[in-house]
Amino acid sequence: MRENRLRRLWAAEQPVLNGWLALPGSFGAEVMAHQGWDALTIDLQHGLIDAQAMVGMLQAIATTNTVPVVRVPWLEPGIVMKALDAGAYGVICPMIDSVDDAARLVSYTHYAPRGTRSFGPIRAALYGGADYAAHADDTIVAFAMIETAHALERLDAILSVEGLDAIYVGPSDLSLALGCRPVFDDVEPKVAEAIAHIAQRAQAHGVVAGIHNGRVDVARARVALGYRFVTLGTDSRLLAAGSQQLLGAMRAAPAQ
Amino acid sequence: MRENRLRRLWAAEQPVLNGWLALPGSFGAEVMAHQGWDALTIDLQHGLIDAQAMVGMLQAIATTNTVPVVRVPWLEPGIVMKALDAGAYGVICPMIDSVDDAARLVSYTHYAPRGTRSFGPIRAALYGGADYAAHADDTIVAFAMIETAHALERLDAILSVEGLDAIYVGPSDLSLALGCRPVFDDVEPKVAEAIAHIAQRAQAHGVVAGIHNGRVDVARARVALGYRFVTLGTDSRLLAAGSQQLLGAMRAAPAQ
Amino acid sequence: MRENRLRRLWAAEQPVLNGWLALPGSFGAEVMAHQGWDALTIDLQHGLIDAQAMVGMLQAIATTNTVPVVRVPWLEPGIVMKALDAGAYGVICPMIDSVDDAARLVSYTHYAPRGTRSFGPIRAALYGGADYAAHADDTIVAFAMIETAHALERLDAILSVEGLDAIYVGPSDLSLALGCRPVFDDVEPKVAEAIAHIAQRAQAHGVVAGIHNGRVDVARARVALGYRFVTLGTDSRLLAAGSQQLLGAMRAAPAQ
Amino acid sequence: MRENRLRRLWAAEQPVLNGWLALPGSFGAEVMAHQGWDALTIDLQHGLIDAQAMVGMLQAIATTNTVPVVRVPWLEPGIVMKALDAGAYGVICPMIDSVDDAARLVSYTHYAPRGTRSFGPIRAALYGGADYAAHADDTIVAFAMIETAHALERLDAILSVEGLDAIYVGPSDLSLALGCRPVFDDVEPKVAEAIAHIAQRAQAHGVVAGIHNGRVDVARARVALGYRFVTLGTDSRLLAAGSQQLLGAMRAAPAQ
Amino acid sequence: MRENRLRRLWAAEQPVLNGWLALPGSFGAEVMAHQGWDALTIDLQHGLIDAQAMVGMLQAIATTNTVPVVRVPWLEPGIVMKALDAGAYGVICPMIDSVDDAARLVSYTHYAPRGTRSFGPIRAALYGGADYAAHADDTIVAFAMIETAHALERLDAILSVEGLDAIYVGPSDLSLALGCRPVFDDVEPKVAEAIAHIAQRAQAHGVVAGIHNGRVDVARARVALGYRFVTLGTDSRLLAAGSQQLLGAMRAAPAQ
Amino acid sequence: MRENRLRRLWAAEQPVLNGWLALPGSFGAEVMAHQGWDALTIDLQHGLIDAQAMVGMLQAIATTNTVPVVRVPWLEPGIVMKALDAGAYGVICPMIDSVDDAARLVSYTHYAPRGTRSFGPIRAALYGGADYAAHADDTIVAFAMIETAHALERLDAILSVEGLDAIYVGPSDLSLALGCRPVFDDVEPKVAEAIAHIAQRAQAHGVVAGIHNGRVDVARARVALGYRFVTLGTDSRLLAAGSQQLLGAMRAAPAQ
Repeated sequence: MRENRLRRLWAAEQPVLNGWLALPGSFGAEVMAHQGWDALTIDLQHGLIDAQAMVGMLQAIATTNTVPVVRVPWLEPGIVMKALDAGAYGVICPMIDSVDDAARLVSYTHYAPRGTRSFGPIRAALYGGADYAAHADDTIVAFAMIETAHALERLDAILSVEGLDAIYVGPSDLSLALGCRPVFDDVEPKVAEAIAHIAQRAQAHGVVAGIHNGRVDVARARVALGYRFVTLGTDSRLLAAGSQQLLGAMRAAPAQ
Repeated sequence: MRENRLRRLWAAEQPVLNGWLALPGSFGAEVMAHQGWDALTIDLQHGLIDAQAMVGMLQAIATTNTVPVVRVPWLEPGIVMKALDAGAYGVICPMIDSVDDAARLVSYTHYAPRGTRSFGPIRAALYGGADYAAHADDTIVAFAMIETAHALERLDAILSVEGLDAIYVGPSDLSLALGCRPVFDDVEPKVAEAIAHIAQRAQAHGVVAGIHNGRVDVARARVALGYRFVTLGTDSRLLAAGSQQLLGAMRAAPAQ
Repeated sequence: MRENRLRRLWAAEQPVLNGWLALPGSFGAEVMAHQGWDALTIDLQHGLIDAQAMVGMLQAIATTNTVPVVRVPWLEPGIVMKALDAGAYGVICPMIDSVDDAARLVSYTHYAPRGTRSFGPIRAALYGGADYAAHADDTIVAFAMIETAHALERLDAILSVEGLDAIYVGPSDLSLALGCRPVFDDVEPKVAEAIAHIAQRAQAHGVVAGIHNGRVDVARARVALGYRFVTLGTDSRLLAAGSQQLLGAMRAAPAQ
Repeated sequence: MRENRLRRLWAAEQPVLNGWLALPGSFGAEVMAHQGWDALTIDLQHGLIDAQAMVGMLQAIATTNTVPVVRVPWLEPGIVMKALDAGAYGVICPMIDSVDDAARLVSYTHYAPRGTRSFGPIRAALYGGADYAAHADDTIVAFAMIETAHALERLDAILSVEGLDAIYVGPSDLSLALGCRPVFDDVEPKVAEAIAHIAQRAQAHGVVAGIHNGRVDVARARVALGYRFVTLGTDSRLLAAGSQQLLGAMRAAPAQ
Repeated sequence: MRENRLRRLWAAEQPVLNGWLALPGSFGAEVMAHQGWDALTIDLQHGLIDAQAMVGMLQAIATTNTVPVVRVPWLEPGIVMKALDAGAYGVICPMIDSVDDAARLVSYTHYAPRGTRSFGPIRAALYGGADYAAHADDTIVAFAMIETAHALERLDAILSVEGLDAIYVGPSDLSLALGCRPVFDDVEPKVAEAIAHIAQRAQAHGVVAGIHNGRVDVARARVALGYRFVTLGTDSRLLAAGSQQLLGAMRAAPAQ
Repeated sequence: MRENRLRRLWAAEQPVLNGWLALPGSFGAEVMAHQGWDALTIDLQHGLIDAQAMVGMLQAIATTNTVPVVRVPWLEPGIVMKALDAGAYGVICPMIDSVDDAARLVSYTHYAPRGTRSFGPIRAALYGGADYAAHADDTIVAFAMIETAHALERLDAILSVEGLDAIYVGPSDLSLALGCRPVFDDVEPKVAEAIAHIAQRAQAHGVVAGIHNGRVDVARARVALGYRFVTLGTDSRLLAAGSQQLLGAMRAAPAQ
């Protein structure tokens, strides 16, 4: 089975640089995949992308060796398994709020007897190889998002769920959960504290921690905290920020 | 944040005239949006429309000042939140059967601490404005559909759920629930009685009531009962009815 | 091969009632096809429909016995032949301006030796039957649109083109061509005269004449002139007109 | 209402030959539907097909008298009901694990008072007929998939659920559930035993049993066991197998 | 009719800042349209966008007051007119090689008697207004691309074609035409000379000149030469450039 | 630039085995691409595929080292160039009827000064590499289809057109052109003679000859005639033939 480069990078103690796709469309995904991201996440939750568009995007990413990850809209088994059958090598699941939620995520992403994932890796076996069935459980990575107050309280228990390889922090939702403004980067102190705490506990449990970021300096600081899967570069934000920069420069007073 | 005209119309004691979109396709939605409907509802439940098609339709409606509403297929958090992130200003949720269902609907449609909606209003902030996060909870309207026997029995309790702004009656399902034929307009007496009762209780609780209708006379009678969000004019029915009328006239005996 | 009901209706001296599809989307087409139109034309020219959407619409129409017709965007061989391969039983081609244009249309819609249509009726043979190759040339109908000043001047020559079975009048373009306002129904006198003239010349040449109409009374008057393929009921207009009627009735002063 | 040929074939003690669609796209579905399959199942679970693509495929199948069936991704009410509203005459639901699951499946696929299916058969009534509401409950077939260890243990109880007409065996998942390699055809002995047992118990309860197969000999053997709905011929496998056969023959040593 | 802001900006001697869309997809277009571009061009030629995707993108742009422009794939009447019917306020046509080509472009973009555009502004009238027919000819702008050696030789004659409002320079093709490497910005001297010459001749003829650019400094220099429609910011390049910048910063040696 | 394996295989005197895609949809294309075809041709002419669907299919093929080829609908510059910009490494153009047609095909597929292809290899440069501009003219292969009586008469002249690398024979159209029934394999004698003649003349001119086939024995015989690009295995035919085989075996009398 094709290896999951995420696991190799982590074994080498390297942070994974993850781009983010919120725009549906396979060509944008292919352009992004050619830029050198270690991973690209197709966001079915807040991105305007559904399961059909996801397939084309997974194919586009598969023209490169960038690792394809999917964030599902919710902890619903239908879509979690569809993402895997379509060839995702990682699944990020939002709003894991309890040990039970985390255990269900593990269950949905592993075949019996470890879980309840139904068998039918129709595109996954094309992408991963004919021996997909034998190795998928140990290759795929499932990330439980830690972003609610309740999950923060039960963090150690969640991190102890057998088979849970990784978590992912959503700073915006975590901010709301802690009564703060929803931002990615310049989070309020108690959110910053939680972010540092989560990284520390994840390391203690041998669980990889990932996090969403808006700026490079913030992402680098979080790598320093121990995060090993750092997101930057949402496609829709690249369009907006790039346009703003060009329009600002064009409309600036003419050079003398 | 862009205001929600539904709330303004209701504050002015005006009924909202709501058109209904069951055909996928952004151009049909744009044609409908240019006719002057106060609101248009994209029906993801019985309409043949999924989340991807919904996005184009929301964009089409956004070329006018018609208010975009989405009926979701079921009380499932993934799709409820996707509809909101895509810019819906109202969400109609079918088959709210209990107080717990109603409370979950409120939860899915409000951010923490009022609910569990996850933060990421990717298109909603383009449509609503940069201050979407601060005002969304008070701007969006969630309608709980009252259409089961169980819900009818617990009507006052459901109407008392904190944060529930509106309900919506589906006369067909309500008819089935009461052992009657499923129709919109010429409902059997006990359905008619329930429809009057629901309007009366909703008013008593300060909750807006909406209802599905097939004919103008019925819609007007229900406005008189207190309904403030009345649906007419499903696109697929307009095609059928308009065709029938033309074909009937063409095939009638020639004028002398 | 499945017969072309257009030819049977014409043999019986019956006018064909043709609906019109400008909205892309197979479900709208299926709804229209179930209303009893003799034919439905998928408009690739002014409708917002391309060749891919056309396929689904042809499939939808094929669930009924309504005859599928396609208006192509222009006299371009690629799209004319794609419409036929996809199963259209009629092709309407706009802006036939000369004898040469008309001859090219005949050529594109017939196999060698009668024309230059390339062989590959991939869906057409599913729809028409395994003997499609043998009968297509005599089954399909090609309509040359007569709507330019130049074509009007050469009308008899165009109508004499061998293999041209039918023409179709676009009153709007014809109006513009004659220096008048572009309308379907209440055309100016010299357009009305041209419309009568075209019907008369077509009959003299044994060519079926079709025409676009907006209102029933106009369509019936044109049947009386000899038109045997009369269009009414564009889907997008049905949505607009139906909505206007409902909204008008709802907003009228309340009945006393 | 249009009859469900599945029920007629079963009444005549005939096995239903069911093809399988994993590729999205209405034209592939139409090609398959023209080959004479008794039924075709659109696989929304492991197939790369979502609800929007399903609609076009249902339309394509409706150009023939092949019976349209949908396998839903999971026991989630939104998609189960969308499949029915779009015109599916059968629904296969994976991973029915308990009596409660089976009862929920029955509930989602029947109108009140027998169940909780919401009323709005928008395309189903076009396909099935104007009297759809009156007959749908007795026409549609819901298949509960038996493929987990837990379900196997409770087989008799599941088969006793009122309103459950049919079950469907997924040999791959059943193999995993029993600790064996996931295959369709050459299953390990304890899976073979379970397959025979399920057929026998289903017959005892008067429930139709269906099963997934890869090869004709296996399918025939399972018909002999009592299975009355046998799947063969997944579209994606036909592409792969047919290509392999052609390439093998072309690359074989040249004939002397 | 809704005014064409391009003409107003030009009347005010202001350069138009034009963004460029090569990615299909209406949400990317909507994001771009919200950034403040004066115009956005949907590139049907080198962009991976066809006529169906164009419609959704035109709708997305119409949620703002950015002017929608379409570059067509070639001087083919079908697609030129489809772009206009769908609501484009500008059309850029590649490879105008002669006076005849330029005259055909003018013809395809104006109604009779000025041209041969066929009447049916189905979405254009929604976007432009009910009086579209009366004003479209003077509102729409057609740009003839000057990018071949032959066209450069006949520049004055082309610029003299009646009804031609604007030209657009493609520096890459122009470079190839002059035997140079195809680039946008750092063009070889004889290309630079041609670019200056074209601007000068266009001004002499009262024709607006536009040009494609990659960098802000180049675009500003070309405005200084007299170009009044300057393109920057292709969406696919924004994704690539933004990603490169983020990845470069992340992979740089850690700050000390 | 990524090499074109077609040229390498031809240099090694090996025939290219080419599969054929008539079904739109990127997943079917990906399945086919994983079977080991040397090349896969996306048929925009008789296949039900348009330019937008083509992009996803080219991406799917690019996940393997199968060479992507596109058959365009007609000798129309817009679509020929769009196929190349999207990354096709070969273009097959139907109905090349004359030396002028062949010269235009060469022109459309080469950059200035060898031709008139417009520059903008948006996806082609991702697929082919950053040096695409420098090598595309010598890498891409254009096939002129020889399938009309007129072309057959001028065969040597067409084969002499500078820059024409390859031809492709469509036996069905060629049959029609010679007054025979349109078939791929069991062609009538004068068609067989023409097929042998074309191969012989192509070899004499150093032009690669390709041909469409239905059966392996026929394809092998044509390789023996000198054809170096042989098509087999149209996806839609694989579905039909595979289904027929399975259904036939299932419905055969039961084994004793």
